[in-house]
Parts: sequence; structure tokens; C-alpha cells
Amino acid sequence: MVSDTIAAIATAVGEASISVIRVSGPEAVAEVSRIFKGRVALDQADSHTVHYGHIIDPATGERVEEVLATIMRAPRSFTTEDVIEISSHGGVVAVRRVMDILLQQRIRIAEPGEFTKRAFLNGRIDLSQAEGVIDLIRSKSDRAFSVALKQVEGKLSRQIKPLQQTLIETLAHIEVNIDYPEHDVESFTSDLIKNKSAEVMTEIDKLLRTANEGKILREGITTAIVGRPNVGKSSLLNALAHDNRAIVTDIPGTTRDVIEEYVTINNIPLKLLDTAGIRETMDVVEKIGVERSRGAVNDADLLLFVLNSSEPLHADEIELMEQISGRQVIVILNKIDLPPQLDRSVLLQHFDEQQIVEMSVKDEQGVDRLEQAISSLFFGGKLEANDVTYVSNVRHIGLLKQAKRSLQDAYEAADQFIPIDMIQIDVRLAWEQLGEIIGDSAPDSLIDQIFSQFCLGK
Amino acid sequence: MVSDTIAAIATAVGEASISVIRVSGPEAVAEVSRIFKGRVALDQADSHTVHYGHIIDPATGERVEEVLATIMRAPRSFTTEDVIEISSHGGVVAVRRVMDILLQQRIRIAEPGEFTKRAFLNGRIDLSQAEGVIDLIRSKSDRAFSVALKQVEGKLSRQIKPLQQTLIETLAHIEVNIDYPEHDVESFTSDLIKNKSAEVMTEIDKLLRTANEGKILREGITTAIVGRPNVGKSSLLNALAHDNRAIVTDIPGTTRDVIEEYVTINNIPLKLLDTAGIRETMDVVEKIGVERSRGAVNDADLLLFVLNSSEPLHADEIELMEQISGRQVIVILNKIDLPPQLDRSVLLQHFDEQQIVEMSVKDEQGVDRLEQAISSLFFGGKLEANDVTYVSNVRHIGLLKQAKRSLQDAYEAADQFIPIDMIQIDVRLAWEQLGEIIGDSAPDSLIDQIFSQFCLGK
Repeated sequence: MVSDTIAAIATAVGEASISVIRVSGPEAVAEVSRIFKGRVALDQADSHTVHYGHIIDPATGERVEEVLATIMRAPRSFTTEDVIEISSHGGVVAVRRVMDILLQQRIRIAEPGEFTKRAFLNGRIDLSQAEGVIDLIRSKSDRAFSVALKQVEGKLSRQIKPLQQTLIETLAHIEVNIDYPEHDVESFTSDLIKNKSAEVMTEIDKLLRTANEGKILREGITTAIVGRPNVGKSSLLNALAHDNRAIVTDIPGTTRDVIEEYVTINNIPLKLLDTAGIRETMDVVEKIGVERSRGAVNDADLLLFVLNSSEPLHADEIELMEQISGRQVIVILNKIDLPPQLDRSVLLQHFDEQQIVEMSVKDEQGVDRLEQAISSLFFGGKLEANDVTYVSNVRHIGLLKQAKRSLQDAYEAADQFIPIDMIQIDVRLAWEQLGEIIGDSAPDSLIDQIFSQFCLGK
Repeated sequence: MVSDTIAAIATAVGEASISVIRVSGPEAVAEVSRIFKGRVALDQADSHTVHYGHIIDPATGERVEEVLATIMRAPRSFTTEDVIEISSHGGVVAVRRVMDILLQQRIRIAEPGEFTKRAFLNGRIDLSQAEGVIDLIRSKSDRAFSVALKQVEGKLSRQIKPLQQTLIETLAHIEVNIDYPEHDVESFTSDLIKNKSAEVMTEIDKLLRTANEGKILREGITTAIVGRPNVGKSSLLNALAHDNRAIVTDIPGTTRDVIEEYVTINNIPLKLLDTAGIRETMDVVEKIGVERSRGAVNDADLLLFVLNSSEPLHADEIELMEQISGRQVIVILNKIDLPPQLDRSVLLQHFDEQQIVEMSVKDEQGVDRLEQAISSLFFGGKLEANDVTYVSNVRHIGLLKQAKRSLQDAYEAADQFIPIDMIQIDVRLAWEQLGEIIGDSAPDSLIDQIFSQFCLGK
């Protein structure tokens, strides 16, 4: 496949010691050699060697930046193409200067995910491995990272491929038997389809059993902290995040927007949303915040409903309670350092005792109990062992469910002696759906869409 | 010098394709080899080669991360020590996992600037070059970067060293002549001191002439946008920054804090501060913003005073005008698309016509006139040519001024036939002050203080 040469900044942009620009493609060595001046000419250099030198503006001869250039020749590179990584000083200006010169050569700026896409299109990794790469980068916890690293290393692919193999063998059998439609052959084929479908469905079920935890490990439990103004929502967020991202003051309604914070509790990643106090307000700026926070509450997996235990329940709180009962809720009775004024019996009409956690966020009391309650609610108190292959990607989960449904259809059709060539369609569909996970049978539009979600430089 | 082995994250932390961790010191190769598993053992690898492999947890054998490891053996490295750079996936978790394993070996976390400090202590770069490194990273404009890159390459050092040489030769002459205190020798020595002092002072003056522009190029002109609420301060900031960092609404007092934004106008970097509207307010949250904005106004090099030309002057504005006249001010008459209501004659009592710029920020009218006005105010309309060596660092500027004063003292003393051994002290002082710029004669405490301002991983 003929492709052009692309470049992008591969490191996060910000004040740092170094930044790295990645160049990949058939012209990478020739084009970068023209603008790199060091002791050794890059196009003469061995693969996997590093060279000190300067990026030069070929128009003026000016030294643009002091760099280290690493050359990795095809096919021993991330993309399997010739790759040059240019390590420059950190900061915004250095990378922009080097990129400016690169893009004046026969090099264009890479699209998001284009390096990984090339690794996929050139056959170095399959689609689920490519998706694991972005999960690695975006992972917010150790467990999420481990799950993604296994996916990058192809562990999910190695579980999918034997299932595909079973289905393709079954299809081959069906193909042969369609040409010899005698009764006993047909009966034998029906049995084969039922057996093989059941076998693959069992394996798919095993994978799907990890999906819920896998998804939580990957994305975190989206957790909204809700409650009236001034009950301690921002303080709780800070207590959990151990820093002071949200501004905490004594003025009701101070939190003006939805703030996200990632925390890890007993290895469970929570994506915490701090929300503007849910209340009626005439303040226009605050109203924007309140509307956004309603949206956050509706999308959350878990609600932390904070109450001030030193005050009687407010009408707003009783209304909110009715709205959210039936959701995954933990009720936080805050300010237990003060004399209690809140009537617990009203709470117990809507929630179980285990859902209620007493805390004094100000004194950092009860954070451990909250952590325990979250852990119980989502994992029955413990996570599975480390060597499970989690299916964590929503796309994979969806395709596994579709494949299972197709096989279920095939199984039932075979059971009812529906003509074999009809059943064949379902088995083939299941095979394609599994193939879509690893990219064998993924349409171009899907591939484009997946890689477009990657960050620049990946 | 015996030193231990250090490690730190060298790239900015954030969602990105890759991150780099740098390890430097006598144990770097041995210790990283123990936790790196690739086709080649790192301690067997040639210098300046790159190796694909995994970081392994030696306790469990678990693959912690997939990496590229680059080995640069002493003395051909940034620090002149053995250096290994580990390129991992981007994101927060990957680097933390690798750092965790590294720090369980005989490796400690580096202090800010410690890699560059080692490069300095090991004699690879001098102090002004080291300071240039951090200027490179922090530079906010192309010109600032060019100034810093020249400093890193030793251009300032090469101008300082001949001056030091002249002074040390002069001191040697004085030393000889003190032993032969005959009258004509003494007269000859006085002339020598006067000539040489004058010669060096001339050169120092040349350098100091670049200091003002150098400092502006390096740090940017700290520019505060001031004015009453709703005259268009945030809109102006956005028009200059060409994006929407500040929230712009129609509600007076919406901007609640000081917001910084770097922009480059005709190659002049501005550090723009958007300030909460200066007005009396009872809102506690807003009051914090207003107090901070008063501080910002006092510290600014340039004030952009925004007025609504479609309204008469407000008493607050007349008061503010009196407070800021005498400062570097550009008055922006905004909203010129509306019928004018503002009495210009009052403005002209405090400001010159050239200081007043008419704009309609909403329609992006007049931005070019503003750019022109700023350029005129600070550079008489144009910047110097690119090949000037700018002295941009406040520490260097201070030392050059001190050295000049010492030489002035020596010159005057020689002129008044004060005993040579007294004059000698001033010449030696000047020599030391110049030496402090490049670190020859810098005390340890100063060196520690300079490197402590560096970012981690540098």
C-alpha cells in the first residue's frame, strides 16, 4: 500500500523537559535528513539509533532547535513504516517551530489516530489491539491499565479467533451438506449447528460475564454528588480527591459548574461529578450550572446524595429522594459532628440501611465507610482476580451480544428443521460479528470512526 | 564526583501518544536492565541505540508496560552520565506504573532541574546556558525561543568570557606593579586600569542596551485589561487570543477571576490578564476577584483601558483614569459601531491622541490599530534585527549592572590616584560578577536556587 508521510506531536503539550514529534512514512528518512544536521547524516544511520543534532531551516540555514533524532526503519516500528522520532525541548514553541519546518517538507500533519491506524492497516495489530492502545492512554486506574494492556497484547483476540475458527468450520460443513441434501445428512447438519452454536455461545457468555466489571474498570463509575446547596458536596469531592480542585466557600451556590475528578477507591475508578446545587435560582449564571447538573444526574451510574444531618429534611430533598429512588444511590448523612436533626425514618422509606453512610466530611470521618459502601454496591465487596480477560469496550460487548443472538437464532432454526441454507445466514452473521471485533470484517467507515476518536500523534 | 541515580518524567503529563521517563546516573544501565525485558539486554547494548521491550515487575514477573528504551552512555548524554530514556504510552497511569517500579530499584526521584544541574556540575554547560534551557521551555513566542536558543548554545558566554579575560590580565598587571611601586609604574598602571575598565564598560553597555527588549521578549509585556463591567474586556481578550477561554455573557460582573492568556502581536509576546470588572460589589465571591484584579493592575507593564464609546464617562472611569495616568496606557474606545456618547476631551486631559485606539471588538474592527499602538509604545514600531544577542535574564542584567558599577569605581579611583591595591578590589569584584553570570564564581546557594526553579524531569 502506497502512503504519504505524516508527522504529529506525540507527547502532551505543556511545560516539560522534552517533547517528541513522530514522523512516519516512506519519505520520513529522506525528508527529515534534509533538515537535520548532526555528526551523522540520518539517511546513513542504522535502524534503532539515536543522533544528536539540530533542526535547520533549509531556507535560511538558521538553527531552529536542538534535538535528538531516533530512526526506526520499516518494518521494525510502531507503524511498520520508516519512523523518525524527534525529541525537542519541552514547551509550546519548540514543537511548533520543528513542526513548521517539517510541514514545509513533503510531510503532512497526521490525523488523530493515524499512526495506530497505519499499524492496523499494515497488519501489525488488529482492531481490538488498536482500541486497547487508546484505552491504555485514557486509563484512569491501575486495573483499567492492566485490562487495556492485555487487550493491546492480543489476549482478547486470542479468545475470539478460535470461536471464529469453529464457526468457519461449521460453515464449511454446511456448504458441503447443502450440495447433498439427503435426510440423514440434513439431520446430522442440524445437530452439528446446534452443538457448535451452543459451544460458541458458552464461550461468548464467559466473556460477557466480565463485561459489566470490565466496562466499570475501563470507564469508571460515573458518580454524581447531589444535594441542596451548602450540605458539603464540594467538600466531599475534595475529601475523595485529596486536593482542592473545587472552590469551597461558605456561600450557598458557589459551585457554578459541573466539575469532573477521577478517584480510585479500592481499585475502583470513580469519575466524580460535582454539581451545582440543585435548587431553583434566578441567577442566570448559576442557572446554566443547575441545568448542566440535572443532565449529569440523569447520566450517572451512581448518585451520592448528601444530606445535612444537623438540619431537618427540606422539601426539595424529599422531592429529590422520590425522583432518585430505584437508582444506585448512597445517602451520605454529613455533619454528624453536629447534633442530629434529621428524621432517618423518612430516609428508610426510600433506601436500605446499607445505603446510608454517616460522615463528617469536614473532620474526614467516614470516608472509609463510603468507600466500603461503593465497593459493596458494584462488586459485592471484591474484584475478580487479575488474570481474567475483561471485555471492557462497549463496541466489543455489543458485537458479542449480537453474535450470541445470531447463534441463538441459528440454534432455534436448526431445532425446528428450518432449511439449512437459511440457518447458514445466521452462522455467517455471527462469524462476521466476531470478526468485526478484531477488524477482519469491519467496514471502512467503522475503522475511520474508531481511529478518529484517538488523540493526535497516536 | 560520585552521584546517585535519579529518574523523573520528562514529558508533560496528559493524554498523549507517548510519555518519556529519564534515568541518569552511574547505576542507570544496571538498574534499568534488571526491570527491562527485550530482545537485547540493555547492559549489553551499544550507546545511542533504541530497544523495544517491556518493563517487568521483578517481584511478580508481571508486564507493567510496553516501552522503547534508549541508552546513551557517559559522557555522550545530556548529563554526561549514563542515561536511559524510557518511552511509554501516554497518560497518567502508564508513567506512574513505570516510575513505581524504577523507584523500587536503586534509583531515587530527581529534584526539579537536577538533570540540568548535573550537566552544569559535570562541566558540559555553563550557568547561563543552563538558564537558557529553562527559558527555551517557558518561552511563549518565537523570538523568545530564538533568544534562549542562542543562550543555550553559549553565545552570551562567548561574549562574557573575553571581558573576564581582559580583567584577569589587568589584575595580573596590577599584581606585578604592586611589587614595584615606583611613580611612573604607578601612573602607567592607573592608565591601564582606566583604559581597560572603559573598554569593558563599553562592551557591557552594548549588552545592557539589549536588556529591556530582551526582558520583554523573554517574559512578555504583562498587560492588564481594565475597565467597568460590560465594556467588552473579555471580548477584547478573546479577540486578541482568537479563542474563547474567558466566558463571555451579557451579565455584568461575569468574569470572576484573573485569567491569563499569552498572545503574540507583531512578534511581541503579551501576557494578557483579564480582570474582574473594577467596581464596588457586595457579592463575596466577586469581591475576591476584584481584589485580585487590583493587584494585577498594579503589577502590569501595560494597561489596556477599555471604555464604551456609546455611553458617557462614568464617575468610576474618571477616577480610574486619574489613578493610571503616568502609566503605560492604551485607551480603547470600544463599541464604535454604536452612536458616540463619550466626551473625548476629558480623555485628552490624561492621554495623548496616539494612546487612544477606536475599536469595535464585536465586529473585530481595530485590532490591527491596537497591535500597532502596542508595537509603537514598546519598540518605537520595530524590533531589532535577529542576530543581536539579547540579555534577557534579570539575574544577568543585574550582574552586568553591578560589574559596570565596580568598573566605574575602579576608573574613578584610578583617576584620583587612589592606591593601586585598593583599586584592585573593584576590578576583582567586576571579574567575579561577570563570572557569576556563567557560573564560574557562583556560590552553591545561588546554584541550588536557580535549579530549583526548573521543572521536574529537566
